[in-house]
Amino acid sequence: MYQGKVQIVGAGPGDQDLLTLKAAKALSNADVVIYDRLVNIEILALCSETCRLINAGKSAGRHTMTQDDINESLIHFAHRGFQVVRLKGGDPFVFGRGGEEAQALAKAGVRFEIIPGISSALAVPAYAGIPVTHRNLASSFTVVTAHEDPSKPEAHVDYAHLAKSRGTLVFLMGARSIGRISATLIENGMSKDTPAAIIENGTTNRQSAYRCSLREASSLAQREEIFPPAVFLVGPVAGLEDLVWFEADESQEISWRCPTEESLSKAIS
Amino acid sequence: MYQGKVQIVGAGPGDQDLLTLKAAKALSNADVVIYDRLVNIEILALCSETCRLINAGKSAGRHTMTQDDINESLIHFAHRGFQVVRLKGGDPFVFGRGGEEAQALAKAGVRFEIIPGISSALAVPAYAGIPVTHRNLASSFTVVTAHEDPSKPEAHVDYAHLAKSRGTLVFLMGARSIGRISATLIENGMSKDTPAAIIENGTTNRQSAYRCSLREASSLAQREEIFPPAVFLVGPVAGLEDLVWFEADESQEISWRCPTEESLSKAIS
Repeated sequence: MYQGKVQIVGAGPGDQDLLTLKAAKALSNADVVIYDRLVNIEILALCSETCRLINAGKSAGRHTMTQDDINESLIHFAHRGFQVVRLKGGDPFVFGRGGEEAQALAKAGVRFEIIPGISSALAVPAYAGIPVTHRNLASSFTVVTAHEDPSKPEAHVDYAHLAKSRGTLVFLMGARSIGRISATLIENGMSKDTPAAIIENGTTNRQSAYRCSLREASSLAQREEIFPPAVFLVGPVAGLEDLVWFEADESQEISWRCPTEESLSKAIS
Repeated sequence: MYQGKVQIVGAGPGDQDLLTLKAAKALSNADVVIYDRLVNIEILALCSETCRLINAGKSAGRHTMTQDDINESLIHFAHRGFQVVRLKGGDPFVFGRGGEEAQALAKAGVRFEIIPGISSALAVPAYAGIPVTHRNLASSFTVVTAHEDPSKPEAHVDYAHLAKSRGTLVFLMGARSIGRISATLIENGMSKDTPAAIIENGTTNRQSAYRCSLREASSLAQREEIFPPAVFLVGPVAGLEDLVWFEADESQEISWRCPTEESLSKAIS
């Protein structure tokens, strides 16, 4: 029996042109694409007309696929011989359960491939003019899911440890938790004057970037009504102010022209 | 006077198809490209015939540009009105001095842009079947330059702190330091049985990936004569053994066909 294959693909952080050639090729060859809510759906225009597009994370109270539903669908379509793309925002192995999906596929004997994507953990700060490392300011960076409640005793994230880091801290999925995160870091001994940045809708033409101190982050997040997706970054590199280069321009929102299938197949064959 | 622009571009970790559409476009439009030693030079075929290609990191004892030379060249060509690409391996803001170069450009009043690349810190583990995060195993990951000698008192990297991390540790530029890093982590209290992985030439058809415990890493690195570029990863995710999907195949080394300039300009306009 012919076996299909699942490609677990990173769509990148928002700017459509940060898609990789390999991801563009996978989308244009896919029979089925199961995509997440945070994916920039413009890139789905790369798919063929016959490709079946499945939204795994319908928002606004409508039906959302559970993780088990997603795993079963991936296995189902692969067993029927299809080329399946599982499309995720950012990088598929940076949170977002790409590892668990790959394990489910491995267990079911389904062939799979990982196509890394540009992670918002690096690209969103870069579009706000902040390098996560810098020779004089940060020799390491730590990327943390801010999804967990830092006050929960069973939390995996060790804030006492993070507060003592000399490197850059990048919190993903933290739009709603900036107050709690900054308070917990300060309680655990991090200086209130540590530079910080909050970046909303990073890499897109709706990007808003704010600089502040760790002390000010909570009130800034409230005042500006920070909404997901947002990146919260803490560390001396956030104090670099001369590297701003990207100007978000909402009028440019629809400027991306999708490559035609024909031109793309020439370009990336 | 017409002003040129410098694009500081990430070339990705090795697999040419992990180049972004935006980087491909920048290369095809460049008048001058100044590229680093670790860049997969096959992607330079995207440049136009008239593009001037400058190797900033000639190896084998030949002349290498200093950082000042590079900064001056970028400014020089931009001032002459050229579109300049500064091409770096991986992501330009993950080590590799992209931040310093951007600062030099800002100081000189040269327009610049950052084009993030796929970082080897994430993609190399992914190609070895290791997710840097996993719901049950790692809620954070830390990326560290292993270039520094951990025994130097002035080192910025705090190994006592790293040894207490609950997340994944990814050491870049560490091929020569695996013995020292693993010994320093163990001295600082990290369990000798912590799973680890060493990945040489990751994402390419010369990739070799090895799993071991932290205790065994040093002797494994010696026995296998690990050579740069290599990634050294420490943490429970390295113990996941069912996710291997990529098979390096040296016979495939020359399989990449560069997109033609014409097809690319159609695809990414």
